[in-house]
Amino acid sequence: MGYVSSRAVLGRVLLEGLNVILGPSNIGDWSVVGYGVVLGYPSRAVLKSLVGRAIGLEHYDDESSGCAIGENCIIRPYTVVYEKSRLGNCVETGHFVMIRENVTIGDETVVGSRTVVDGDASIGSKCRIQTGCYIPPKTVIGDGVFLGPMVNILNDKYPPSGRLSGVRIDDGAIVGAGAVIMPGVVVGREAVVAAGSLVTRDVDAETVVKGFPAKPVYTRREYEAKREKYLKEFQQM
Amino acid sequence: MGYVSSRAVLGRVLLEGLNVILGPSNIGDWSVVGYGVVLGYPSRAVLKSLVGRAIGLEHYDDESSGCAIGENCIIRPYTVVYEKSRLGNCVETGHFVMIRENVTIGDETVVGSRTVVDGDASIGSKCRIQTGCYIPPKTVIGDGVFLGPMVNILNDKYPPSGRLSGVRIDDGAIVGAGAVIMPGVVVGREAVVAAGSLVTRDVDAETVVKGFPAKPVYTRREYEAKREKYLKEFQQM
Amino acid sequence: MGYVSSRAVLGRVLLEGLNVILGPSNIGDWSVVGYGVVLGYPSRAVLKSLVGRAIGLEHYDDESSGCAIGENCIIRPYTVVYEKSRLGNCVETGHFVMIRENVTIGDETVVGSRTVVDGDASIGSKCRIQTGCYIPPKTVIGDGVFLGPMVNILNDKYPPSGRLSGVRIDDGAIVGAGAVIMPGVVVGREAVVAAGSLVTRDVDAETVVKGFPAKPVYTRREYEAKREKYLKEFQQM
Repeated sequence: MGYVSSRAVLGRVLLEGLNVILGPSNIGDWSVVGYGVVLGYPSRAVLKSLVGRAIGLEHYDDESSGCAIGENCIIRPYTVVYEKSRLGNCVETGHFVMIRENVTIGDETVVGSRTVVDGDASIGSKCRIQTGCYIPPKTVIGDGVFLGPMVNILNDKYPPSGRLSGVRIDDGAIVGAGAVIMPGVVVGREAVVAAGSLVTRDVDAETVVKGFPAKPVYTRREYEAKREKYLKEFQQM
Repeated sequence: MGYVSSRAVLGRVLLEGLNVILGPSNIGDWSVVGYGVVLGYPSRAVLKSLVGRAIGLEHYDDESSGCAIGENCIIRPYTVVYEKSRLGNCVETGHFVMIRENVTIGDETVVGSRTVVDGDASIGSKCRIQTGCYIPPKTVIGDGVFLGPMVNILNDKYPPSGRLSGVRIDDGAIVGAGAVIMPGVVVGREAVVAAGSLVTRDVDAETVVKGFPAKPVYTRREYEAKREKYLKEFQQM
Repeated sequence: MGYVSSRAVLGRVLLEGLNVILGPSNIGDWSVVGYGVVLGYPSRAVLKSLVGRAIGLEHYDDESSGCAIGENCIIRPYTVVYEKSRLGNCVETGHFVMIRENVTIGDETVVGSRTVVDGDASIGSKCRIQTGCYIPPKTVIGDGVFLGPMVNILNDKYPPSGRLSGVRIDDGAIVGAGAVIMPGVVVGREAVVAAGSLVTRDVDAETVVKGFPAKPVYTRREYEAKREKYLKEFQQM
C-alpha cells in the first residue's frame, strides 16, 4: 500500500500508487510519481545501520535524508531514487530507472528506461539520456548532452582498484549508442562520439571521433552539415 | 492493491496481483499477468494532459486506449505495456520488460527480461528476443527472427535529428549478442550477424556478416552446416 | 499486499513490503528483503502447469520449491529470485536483478542492478558483478571474480542451436566493462579482459587480453604493477 513520510513535502503531486516516499523528500507541483516508485531510499551505510532495528520501511523514515524532485516532473513506474539526490524541474524518467544517492540532475533532462545513475554522479540540464545507459560514480555530464542507448561509462582504470577517475562530458556533446567511455576521459564541448566507439583518450571540443579505439574523423560543423542534408532528404521523401 | 478497469475484457486470466489494467484492454484466455504488471499505461501526451486533473491511476482509465494481449500469454512480473499495443497469442515476456505504445508483437514471440520495445516498433511471430535488447521506434522485425542478448538497434543517423530511419530485420534472420545495428539498415531474410558486430550497411539475404564494421564472411547454408557439425560433436560427447 | 508462504522459514528478517515469498523458502537472520521483491517464483514448466488451475499467486505456493537466502543479505527493491536458487551469506543485489532457477551464488558476492543471472548458472563467493550484466545458463564463475558493467556472456555458438556451451571464468579473474565473452570460452585464473573486448578464445591464467577480438598484451603481474602506480599517483594528488 506504500508509505508516505509525514516529513515529506508534496506540492500538487499525482501519486499513481504503491509509492514509498521516505524522509524529508520534497516534490514540486504538477509532478507525477509513477506506480511503485520509491523515493528517498537509504544509502548502503544507512541501510546496514538499520538491520536489526527496523522491521519495515516505515522505520527507515527517520534515517532517510529524503530526495528532492522539482515541478512538472514525470517519474515513471518502478523508478527508484535514493536519498540526497536532487532532480530539477521538468525532469522525466522512464521505467526501471535507478538513481543512487547524492546525484544531481538539472532541469528538463530526460533519463531513459533502465538507465542506472550511480552515486555522486551529476547530470546537467536539457540532457537526453536514452535507454539502458550506465553512469557510474564521479561522472560529470554538462548541459544539453545526448547519450544514445546503452552508453557505458567507466570510472576505474585498473578495476577493482578503489580509485575512481570520473568521466567528464561537456556541454552539447553527443555520444552515440553503445559507446564505451574509458575512465578519466574528457569528452569536450560539442564533441561527437560515433555509435559503437571505444573512447580511450580525451576528445577535443567540436570534434567527431569514431572507431575502436576512437579517432578523430571530422568536425562538429561537418556533422551539422551532414545532419542538415539528412533532414533535407527526408523532407523530399 | 492494483486497479482493473471496468472497461477491460478479461478471459480466464490469472492475475498474480498488484496489477494495473487500464482502459478497454483485452486479455485472452489462459494468459498470466504477473505480479506488478501494468497494462494500458498512457502515452506521454495523454499523461501530460492528465496532470492537474487526475489524482490517481483510476483517473487515467477514461483516457487510456488499453492494450490487447492474446491467449496463453505469460507476462512476467514487473512488465509494463503501454496503451494501443497488441500482443498476439502465446507471447511471453521476461521481467522488467517495457513495451511502449503502438507496438505490435506476433504470436509465439518471446521478449526477454529487461528488453525495451519502443513506440511504433513491430515484431513478427515466433521471434526470440533475448535479454536486455533495445528496439527503438520504427523498427520492423519479421517472423522467426532471433536477437541475442543486448542487441542494440538504432534509428537516427545524426542524433538527435528527429528524423527516424527504422531498421528492418527480415524473416528468419539471426542477430548475435551485443550487435549494434545502425539506423536504416536492412538485415535480409535468413541473414546472420555475428555477435559483437557493428552493422553499418544492408546485409544481403542468407549472408553471414561479422566484424566492426561487419563484412560478409560466408553464407547461411555454411552457417547451417557449421551448426549441424556443432550439434553432432555434442551428441558424441 | 504481498504473500508469504506458511512453509517459508524466515529468521530475523526485515521485509520492506509488497513481498512475495513462495514455497519452502529459507531466509537467514539479519537479511533485508526489499520492497516488491519476489522470492521462489516458479520456473516456466511449473508456471505452465498452473495455468487454468491457479487463480492467484497463493496457488503457486504448493508448487514452488522455494529458494534459499543466507544471513546478512540485502536483496534490494524489485529483485526477482526463482525457485531452487541458493544465495549464500552476505550476498547483496541491486535493483531489478533477476536470478532464475537453480542458480548458486556464494557468500559475500554482490550482483549489481539490472543484472540477469539465467537458470543453472553458478557464481562463487566474493565476486563483484556490476550493473547490467548478462550471465546465461551454464555459466560457471569462480571465487573473487570481478565483472564490470554490461559484461555480456554467451552460451550458444550457432544460435539458436539448443546446444549450450557455458563460459567458465576462474577464480580471481577480472572482466572489464562491456566485454563480450563467446560461448565455451575459459577465462583462466587471475586473467584480465580489458573493457570492450570480444573474447573468442580461451584466456590463459594470469594473462591480460585486449581487443576485438582479444589478444594477449601482458601479464597479471604487470597489471598489478600498473594498478599500484595508478593508486600511487592518486595518493600524490
